[in-house]
Amino acid sequence: MKPPLTQLGHRMSRLTGVRAIMKDIIETLSDAEVEWINLSAGNPVILPEVEQMWRQYGRELLEEPQFGEVVCRYGSSQGYEPLIEAIADTFNTLYGWNLTRRHVLITPGSQSLYFFAANCFGGVSPAGHSQSILLPLSPDYTGYNGACLDPSVLQALQPNIDRLGPHRFKYCPDFDRLQVDDTIGAILFSRPCNPSGNVIATADVERLALVAAQHNIPVLVDSAYAPPFPNLAFTDMDLVWGDNIIHCLSLSKAGLPGERIGIAIAQPELLHPLECFLANAAIHSSRFGQAIAAKAIASGELAQLSKTVIQPHYRHKFERLEAAFDRDMPDDIPWALHAGEGAIFAWLWLEDLPVSDVELYEAIKQEGVILVPGQSFFPGLQEDWVHKRQCLRISLTATVEEIERGVTAIAKVVERTYNKPAFAMAAK
Amino acid sequence: MKPPLTQLGHRMSRLTGVRAIMKDIIETLSDAEVEWINLSAGNPVILPEVEQMWRQYGRELLEEPQFGEVVCRYGSSQGYEPLIEAIADTFNTLYGWNLTRRHVLITPGSQSLYFFAANCFGGVSPAGHSQSILLPLSPDYTGYNGACLDPSVLQALQPNIDRLGPHRFKYCPDFDRLQVDDTIGAILFSRPCNPSGNVIATADVERLALVAAQHNIPVLVDSAYAPPFPNLAFTDMDLVWGDNIIHCLSLSKAGLPGERIGIAIAQPELLHPLECFLANAAIHSSRFGQAIAAKAIASGELAQLSKTVIQPHYRHKFERLEAAFDRDMPDDIPWALHAGEGAIFAWLWLEDLPVSDVELYEAIKQEGVILVPGQSFFPGLQEDWVHKRQCLRISLTATVEEIERGVTAIAKVVERTYNKPAFAMAAK
Repeated sequence: MKPPLTQLGHRMSRLTGVRAIMKDIIETLSDAEVEWINLSAGNPVILPEVEQMWRQYGRELLEEPQFGEVVCRYGSSQGYEPLIEAIADTFNTLYGWNLTRRHVLITPGSQSLYFFAANCFGGVSPAGHSQSILLPLSPDYTGYNGACLDPSVLQALQPNIDRLGPHRFKYCPDFDRLQVDDTIGAILFSRPCNPSGNVIATADVERLALVAAQHNIPVLVDSAYAPPFPNLAFTDMDLVWGDNIIHCLSLSKAGLPGERIGIAIAQPELLHPLECFLANAAIHSSRFGQAIAAKAIASGELAQLSKTVIQPHYRHKFERLEAAFDRDMPDDIPWALHAGEGAIFAWLWLEDLPVSDVELYEAIKQEGVILVPGQSFFPGLQEDWVHKRQCLRISLTATVEEIERGVTAIAKVVERTYNKPAFAMAAK
Repeated sequence: MKPPLTQLGHRMSRLTGVRAIMKDIIETLSDAEVEWINLSAGNPVILPEVEQMWRQYGRELLEEPQFGEVVCRYGSSQGYEPLIEAIADTFNTLYGWNLTRRHVLITPGSQSLYFFAANCFGGVSPAGHSQSILLPLSPDYTGYNGACLDPSVLQALQPNIDRLGPHRFKYCPDFDRLQVDDTIGAILFSRPCNPSGNVIATADVERLALVAAQHNIPVLVDSAYAPPFPNLAFTDMDLVWGDNIIHCLSLSKAGLPGERIGIAIAQPELLHPLECFLANAAIHSSRFGQAIAAKAIASGELAQLSKTVIQPHYRHKFERLEAAFDRDMPDDIPWALHAGEGAIFAWLWLEDLPVSDVELYEAIKQEGVILVPGQSFFPGLQEDWVHKRQCLRISLTATVEEIERGVTAIAKVVERTYNKPAFAMAAK
């Protein structure tokens, strides 16, 4: 039976952006004949020290009377009180923020936080005009697309490209393109950025927040990779705080993706509509994960392991990947890696690429290497910018040895593609 | 700062139905001067045997290598594979359904299941007309209201009232009012019913499903209180299965509300849009709860404890409440309890009540007893039916002794109200 879906039902059933390509990737990887090098994954590595910490706090909770209260009772929509306290205390201690318990909201994963926010702030205004969610620097996280009930509310800006050397570059917000008025409902960006590893400069974040504040617009800073956990910043970065900032955390890269914990830190009046939406749509976030997170955060151990285990693991892999590219890629081809400032991906730009990113992805697949073509990572960018079809996202979740072999294969296909594009195509 | 909310943001921020009254209840209960008898709660009792079972399976999981895969990795949007298997096997064994793994979807609580379904099936159709979610028997679960992005899609039908005795009654669907056509996107009801404890007769469910099937419309059966778990049916009831039925379970009344586990069982093409919506809005459900639920369901222990511990606990309380009403309430007042066929509430109808249900709630509060006025439990029922203001919901989560003292207080206020309504009002 094919049920009668609403317009929204049809929209939310679609496979957009990276989900469409993920379907191809999953089908490809399930071909057991080939031993794939998988550089596509967003699923973080299980690091033994981190798993052990979560297991230890889990065991502790299982022996406490509190366990019954945690899992056998409904909780508050705002979140589990000890976790809220641990978050407020940690940010007050580390960064001198003056958070009370009312400044924290726990959501069932940060994706759902963006879902609530994208639709509370983006869509049709009470006066009937359209309010956009502005992504001030494209590329950015592809999941923002699915978070919008009406994806046309996403409006992304093309960045400036800062060339840091012959084979290195960095995106920067193009303030000449930034026009903020009451057609914007909120500003949103990830920092560090999935997919590019970019960390928008502190001064630029402050400037964005200021412009937004002048128009009474909230700024969501997706800090899924930021300090203090998982602390996947490979460059010094300051967190920016202000009355119109919604600082958004996730524990997914801090070893707890299975438990779906998102955290919003903001002025209570910004959190109120999100909490109500959460209560109506899901009652509250699940509590076992919240309870062990409260322990790991309150003790300081999560921040500690983030610094000493999680960050070095990915930073080391990025360095090895960078060295492999410098070694294997032909110098006379205009390839460039984005500055590795954070997150768990490398981002490769191939200027003047003679084929599209998807065609290149297919050719690289022929060499047994799976990565993600870049064009999915420009949600909300309407312009037909050729750069959108010149990038690849390479995951740092594979082993160093796999990454190095993968880069060798990528280099081989890239070289062939620039020199004999027709040949590269025929390999499909 | 007051952020610029969208129309949807304003709607989802509202406190509707029972949430408005819950605010008053929470504020009232926080008055520590009074020792309240709380007959308002929806938070189930922690039963020691049930808590012990969840703790045992939690400990087991904590000692298994699998724990890392469960909490330290992203999972599939459809749900945790062993839980999906346990559900399919259990329903095939107990009821002879021919479920495969593709017939099961796990959601972050059943509230979110209704949220996804209410908006995939209710709202604006591709052709631009409005599709309703039809509640064929009002009163029903107040949370359906919050689940709808546009609450005006809810359309509820006034029931027939079957008088079972001088002080007993039962709601039945009024098929004369039932008109199904393409303005209906789905049919939805709880069975057993929160708030009334009603179990719609099997033949009536089959008739509803048949009429719906003729119009290609899915029927969501909210089985949050049904067998095989939590098995809070105090009367024999058959589960009804069919190609257009989405059978919806919850583990919240089976001792796991904190972990937010909803389960949909249906044909894969009915689940597909819900799974996509879930993936876009929340990625997947949290996994610790799913993993211990897989163990408790696969072993048969959850079904067993539901039958031997959970069901008798509430059934006994309902019997004591019923006896207390028969003992304490004046026979010459037209009070009537709904047949106690299941769930964790009693539902009192006071025909010809001289004041409103909210006024009566306020008067009963003066006696130190908190319950919930009935008018919140008619979501989608537009008609100004006087019955909507003549009912009270009484929770069975208090102790027997509290329930009995509560009934005595209720009887006292009710008697005074019918005899001297002005006096009852003055007590406010």
